[in-house]
Amino acid sequence: MTAQDQWFDSAITRLADPQNQRVWSIIVSLFGDLAQGPDDRISGAALTRIIQPMHVKPEAIRVALHRLRKDGWIDSARSGRSSEHHLTEFGRVQSAAVTPRIYDRAPKVPQNWHLLMSEGGGSLEDLLLTESYISIGRSAALGSGNVPSNCDDMVVFDVNARNVPDWLKSRLCPSDLIAACCCLADAVKEVRSTKPGEVDLTAAQIATLRTLIVHRWRRVVLRNPDLPPMFFPDDWRGPDCRDAVFALLDILPKPDLGALNAPI
Amino acid sequence: MTAQDQWFDSAITRLADPQNQRVWSIIVSLFGDLAQGPDDRISGAALTRIIQPMHVKPEAIRVALHRLRKDGWIDSARSGRSSEHHLTEFGRVQSAAVTPRIYDRAPKVPQNWHLLMSEGGGSLEDLLLTESYISIGRSAALGSGNVPSNCDDMVVFDVNARNVPDWLKSRLCPSDLIAACCCLADAVKEVRSTKPGEVDLTAAQIATLRTLIVHRWRRVVLRNPDLPPMFFPDDWRGPDCRDAVFALLDILPKPDLGALNAPI
Repeated sequence: MTAQDQWFDSAITRLADPQNQRVWSIIVSLFGDLAQGPDDRISGAALTRIIQPMHVKPEAIRVALHRLRKDGWIDSARSGRSSEHHLTEFGRVQSAAVTPRIYDRAPKVPQNWHLLMSEGGGSLEDLLLTESYISIGRSAALGSGNVPSNCDDMVVFDVNARNVPDWLKSRLCPSDLIAACCCLADAVKEVRSTKPGEVDLTAAQIATLRTLIVHRWRRVVLRNPDLPPMFFPDDWRGPDCRDAVFALLDILPKPDLGALNAPI
Repeated sequence: MTAQDQWFDSAITRLADPQNQRVWSIIVSLFGDLAQGPDDRISGAALTRIIQPMHVKPEAIRVALHRLRKDGWIDSARSGRSSEHHLTEFGRVQSAAVTPRIYDRAPKVPQNWHLLMSEGGGSLEDLLLTESYISIGRSAALGSGNVPSNCDDMVVFDVNARNVPDWLKSRLCPSDLIAACCCLADAVKEVRSTKPGEVDLTAAQIATLRTLIVHRWRRVVLRNPDLPPMFFPDDWRGPDCRDAVFALLDILPKPDLGALNAPI
């Protein structure tokens, strides 16, 4: 076994999400990273080459693809003896909605925040579901930018935070999220620092590593609102983790779909 | 009966609070208006002359004074065959605490507001009791000026109100308060406009009318936080009422205590 193979294997172990290795979710991350365009296709053989090294059985890939088709995320087409898969229009919309946050290297924290307070229930809950509002207690939500038009029945304050108590910090950033973030930061740093000087990875190998990184980062960054630093607990390592994630992705540049799909 | 006597009698009827003619409370208003100084005394005879025209029996005045002594508001001293009454230190502190708001002709609405949000109950409730905070919902309170020092466990936002919904307006300014304010504004305007050109009221008569006005105004103004105009319902007539109250007080200048206490 070469140094490169050893590194690749241990990188897979290190980067695998200890919490969630659901195959359908990994496939969603994979398409979001590598084949989000309307004409992008990934062959069944390429999918297997990318995912199987994560210790996922071909049968599990088939089951996951079946589920994703049923849920309207993925469409598949036969072409001779092989098959080709692509995101549906629905799948691309879902994917595109989160892509900017996942791939933002230096997210700008909004300057203008407002607080909505409802008399109780109803319209505020709708808003929390449909817009990117951050719930603070039972009947208040924090948001940035323009106030939505349907807020006549709410108290609307422009706000500037002056104190954020621990109970709110740990509600916004619970300890499991802090731990997941630390753990990912450590993993990507170690994978990067242990990489042999010269490696010659295949397109599929690069895709395997990228998918693992993006999948796991997605599950940290999307749970984490872009609030000013004072809202975060002291042990939150979000910015450190983000830097480490992109430092590793940068040395694993996105492979070409043609190269990925090319029969070996 | 002279035109002046007729006017005085109908003014008493018009100015009497339809909701609260509790005698001890009227006496508190009276001392607050006329005898708030540490050396100020009002004789029992003067008290009777001021309050009896409000259709209050001497016995009711005695009972009220007894209660006020028991509660530590008033002290009384015998002097020969008559008695003299004065506010205690406690009574003066209580009275002084509300005097600025009652007699403010043009209250300045604070420019800087903050919102405190608690995780639930506890410290916020204490604050609502001890400081001049305005409750907004179960776990939030609006205040002006400096943030108290004991707010580490609360979310503190500097705020600027952009929308105040009807439910909050009518919570801050319920319909009975709006009605009480309208009714008082109408009463003081009518009393002023029907005053005969020339009147020659005794010190006690002036004190009677002033006490009725201040007593009723106190019960409107102290229920009404000094919030920016956008927090008030459209039918709130607070500023109009305030102007009318002071216009009437201005033609009934505070009588001298010596004149009030002088035996007739």
